[in-house]
Amino acid sequence: MRYSKIFGKTIKEAKTFDSKNATFLNKGGFIDQTMAGVYKFLPLGMRVLTKIENIVREEMDEIGQEMLLTALSPKEIWEKTNRLGIDVLFQVQGANPDSLKQNDATYILNPTHEDNITPMVKKFTRSYKDLPLALYQIQNKFRNEARPKSGLLRGREFRMKDLYSFHTSLADLMEYYEVAKQAYIKVFDRLGLGKVTVIALASGGDFTENFSHEFQTFCEAGEDTLFYEETEKVYFNKEVTPSVAPAVSYPQDKELSRDDVLGEGIIGVQELADFLKIPVEQTTKTLLLKADEKYYVAAAVRGGYDVDMGKLKKVLQAKQLRMATGDEVKKVTGTVIGYVGIIGLPDELKVIIDESCDNRKNFECGANKENYHSTNISWGRDIQKPEKFFDIKVAKEGDINPKTGKPYQTFKAAEVGNIFPLETKFSQAFDFSVLDEKGNKQIIYMGSYGIGTTRLMGVIAEVFNDDRGLIWPEAVAPYRVHLISLGKEGEEAHKTAENLYDELNKKGIEVLWDDRLETGAGEKFADADLIGIPYRVVVSSKSLSAGGVEIKKRNETDVRIVPLDKLAYNLRS
Amino acid sequence: MRYSKIFGKTIKEAKTFDSKNATFLNKGGFIDQTMAGVYKFLPLGMRVLTKIENIVREEMDEIGQEMLLTALSPKEIWEKTNRLGIDVLFQVQGANPDSLKQNDATYILNPTHEDNITPMVKKFTRSYKDLPLALYQIQNKFRNEARPKSGLLRGREFRMKDLYSFHTSLADLMEYYEVAKQAYIKVFDRLGLGKVTVIALASGGDFTENFSHEFQTFCEAGEDTLFYEETEKVYFNKEVTPSVAPAVSYPQDKELSRDDVLGEGIIGVQELADFLKIPVEQTTKTLLLKADEKYYVAAAVRGGYDVDMGKLKKVLQAKQLRMATGDEVKKVTGTVIGYVGIIGLPDELKVIIDESCDNRKNFECGANKENYHSTNISWGRDIQKPEKFFDIKVAKEGDINPKTGKPYQTFKAAEVGNIFPLETKFSQAFDFSVLDEKGNKQIIYMGSYGIGTTRLMGVIAEVFNDDRGLIWPEAVAPYRVHLISLGKEGEEAHKTAENLYDELNKKGIEVLWDDRLETGAGEKFADADLIGIPYRVVVSSKSLSAGGVEIKKRNETDVRIVPLDKLAYNLRS
Repeated sequence: MRYSKIFGKTIKEAKTFDSKNATFLNKGGFIDQTMAGVYKFLPLGMRVLTKIENIVREEMDEIGQEMLLTALSPKEIWEKTNRLGIDVLFQVQGANPDSLKQNDATYILNPTHEDNITPMVKKFTRSYKDLPLALYQIQNKFRNEARPKSGLLRGREFRMKDLYSFHTSLADLMEYYEVAKQAYIKVFDRLGLGKVTVIALASGGDFTENFSHEFQTFCEAGEDTLFYEETEKVYFNKEVTPSVAPAVSYPQDKELSRDDVLGEGIIGVQELADFLKIPVEQTTKTLLLKADEKYYVAAAVRGGYDVDMGKLKKVLQAKQLRMATGDEVKKVTGTVIGYVGIIGLPDELKVIIDESCDNRKNFECGANKENYHSTNISWGRDIQKPEKFFDIKVAKEGDINPKTGKPYQTFKAAEVGNIFPLETKFSQAFDFSVLDEKGNKQIIYMGSYGIGTTRLMGVIAEVFNDDRGLIWPEAVAPYRVHLISLGKEGEEAHKTAENLYDELNKKGIEVLWDDRLETGAGEKFADADLIGIPYRVVVSSKSLSAGGVEIKKRNETDVRIVPLDKLAYNLRS
Repeated sequence: MRYSKIFGKTIKEAKTFDSKNATFLNKGGFIDQTMAGVYKFLPLGMRVLTKIENIVREEMDEIGQEMLLTALSPKEIWEKTNRLGIDVLFQVQGANPDSLKQNDATYILNPTHEDNITPMVKKFTRSYKDLPLALYQIQNKFRNEARPKSGLLRGREFRMKDLYSFHTSLADLMEYYEVAKQAYIKVFDRLGLGKVTVIALASGGDFTENFSHEFQTFCEAGEDTLFYEETEKVYFNKEVTPSVAPAVSYPQDKELSRDDVLGEGIIGVQELADFLKIPVEQTTKTLLLKADEKYYVAAAVRGGYDVDMGKLKKVLQAKQLRMATGDEVKKVTGTVIGYVGIIGLPDELKVIIDESCDNRKNFECGANKENYHSTNISWGRDIQKPEKFFDIKVAKEGDINPKTGKPYQTFKAAEVGNIFPLETKFSQAFDFSVLDEKGNKQIIYMGSYGIGTTRLMGVIAEVFNDDRGLIWPEAVAPYRVHLISLGKEGEEAHKTAENLYDELNKKGIEVLWDDRLETGAGEKFADADLIGIPYRVVVSSKSLSAGGVEIKKRNETDVRIVPLDKLAYNLRS
């Protein structure tokens, strides 16, 4: 490709975005923002995305069959899985009266496809002999994110490879799960991310005791924090990190007398701490929840922490957990949401208190009285100390590893893939089972395995760059060679470059030729650094007198002169 | 691929759909309906679709650069082009209160991308030197069709290749337009549709005197009717066919006396004809329109015809035309919509009457009086015969070619592609111009060029089949060879087939091996015919004793025995 003809040239004056990937990909002419969280892929970006998707496709073809599901689905499917309420769901309908007159139905714009693929596979599966089965697609996904950010890392429209597997037993699922894990490792290795990507344990969701696994790439713009457990050499995401809160730092010397303080409308812990002039860690956050639609439970963590639903479910051995409604809070505690506390609760109510609440004197908690907060609560005096404290909190930086007694080492990371043992969550919703060899009804076990391909492009850009621009790994670079000719049309350097351009193309070496005649060397070099193609080759009268062309790798400083007839050899993979 | 492992096996009991493509593609396991007009592509179908898209992509890469626009766009873009009211438009918003709380914006789900690409190209275009430019994408499109039908031929979600070109002059656009036309011819040739696909002239829309061009494939399930103009050897679509209505067949001997008949609520011409007990051709359909927001015009055609807006615009030399509102009808004619006629209209109103209304006596037309229809109107007596009749109707089968005086030969066809000289329609909306070499402001000329890739798959299935199933052209067949082994595991035939399967795969010849052990020959042959792979190869003890394997092409009846070591040679392209 001649750079003079390419659409989407570098924009030096482009604004600086909230992340390196957004900034460099925009300035380099790879992507263009349609609106928050929605990006177009310009020809350079399209080449990178296609290469990423082809690598993913090649590895997935080894373990599954490619197909294409639909972006639209009927609402009924999402009703069946009870997921019409998930907070990123978009719906679709006619945009004006004429359109609605033609068809007034409302559809779901799929954010993920478990709900769609399960009934389809059920329809086509006649016997246990049709299983195991693994199907994948690469498709657009749509999510109504509250705050799209970090360029391609979190968007409202993005592309994803999603693979789903179907099995007649948990053992068969787990065997395939390992196969998928290995395929994922290969994908990230091939993309150049192998050395900076780790597998982190994450929650397995409602239907399994197993962990799910996240492939996390270390990167500052990443939204996740990984906790490294050094004795087992395991990374945890914050939801599943076994954690001990560090001791509170406010004075613990004497017990003050309890007080119920009027604090109308003051609900968030930071706001409350400011109001009471105490540190956040002196407050207590108490939630009322309903477990398995059977019983209520109050769950408390020290101010500054959040309750981790996954950990709490495990403690309760509950399948499902939801926040109590306002009416339910009133019925159970006599107060309203925001003023629930751990003192004075009905005896029969189950109460689970995080260990971060232990070892405190004079702490605050909701008074279970509208608009009131109780202060200077102490264990034993105002409230019976529970028999046992639990770990039901989302881990935070600074938390202590219970195995070592020392704070965890933490890492910022971006999730580039995940594998998930769904087990029977979706097969139960669609009543998907088969008769096994012995004629017994066997519920289907499922796994799901995702890689966000556009996000991957963002993460690669985020990881591989320097002050001057991008540094693409060879496997996904838009071109292998950035050929720069200096000098005017008709001059030797320009003619030589043109010949080299033809020769490299003929040899199947992808080359972007900056053939612009009115652009200076400085600008061409800056553009090459910004675009980040692995090899820069310069043809100038100077290089020709020195015996050939200048060759430099984007990630090295070394510049060599190579004779013209040795160029292709020096650019080999 | 082993057929025992493939997802989406043939379903003999699948229902028969409204078209051959839907029936065969469903029964063959190529596609699966999510809901009306929305189809999933199963692994076999995905292979066909990918091959079609790769052929399209290869030809488009010769004339343009690939990129990827977004499915979502902000409403403001569609406001700018004044197209928020188009009747197939879908909009997107949060699907539940939690989602709306996160983000309550409403987006458009793009049915086409002119509105999106124009402002983007404007943003990146700095000089006339950046042009001409041609960009394309292959992407999902969404249209809220009133009646999706004919399988992949008309859907609500489908895939399309859309190319857009940008030029500094009309001449440059028209030069590129011819290049695109040739690329399209090549695409359809390569897909095996060349011999049954013609270029039909169609309307060029508001901003051009030029025709647009439709690539139409002859096929019974097609929604379009082509009119063949034999002297020029040109196909027209019905909107642009120069047409003369055949003479009416009701008696023309004597003039009867005019009557104003009460016909409350009777509006459609068929309903009216039934009510008046006259043939439809004796009625007259009159519309009141507003041209260029400047003046009103009454346009009339004989009952049974529709007014063609494109033809009428040309007669009026108007850029834009819309139906008058109820208030406007009242103001201009004194009556309400449905009772407008050509008699007694204000003198200053422009009236355009189609030639189909000529040569009639005793015809009906609206009385311009609410609820009344005038009958037995005759030219000269009740209404002055216009100086000139025009051709402003959508042509119908049976219409006469004015050049030959004989009825047109007509053909049913499905549109597989179109090329469209948009000229300045979108560049004007976005004020997109550049300074030319002389420093003069130059508005941009655009063309758009579409190929529906999923529809193409439907059309190919529609054209190439017989009673037993599909007959894929080699270029798009899911596999080249359908290998059938007869006999049990461990038997010679099965072992030979397994070796052939490995050998053909190694040689890069795509093969689907029906390796099922419990399925009979009859069922395997029927499945092969239904799936429609070009070469069927059978290995059985019978074929082995006869000296090798049986080879048969799907579209031939001839069966040959070929020695094992000559098989690959006999399957070459």
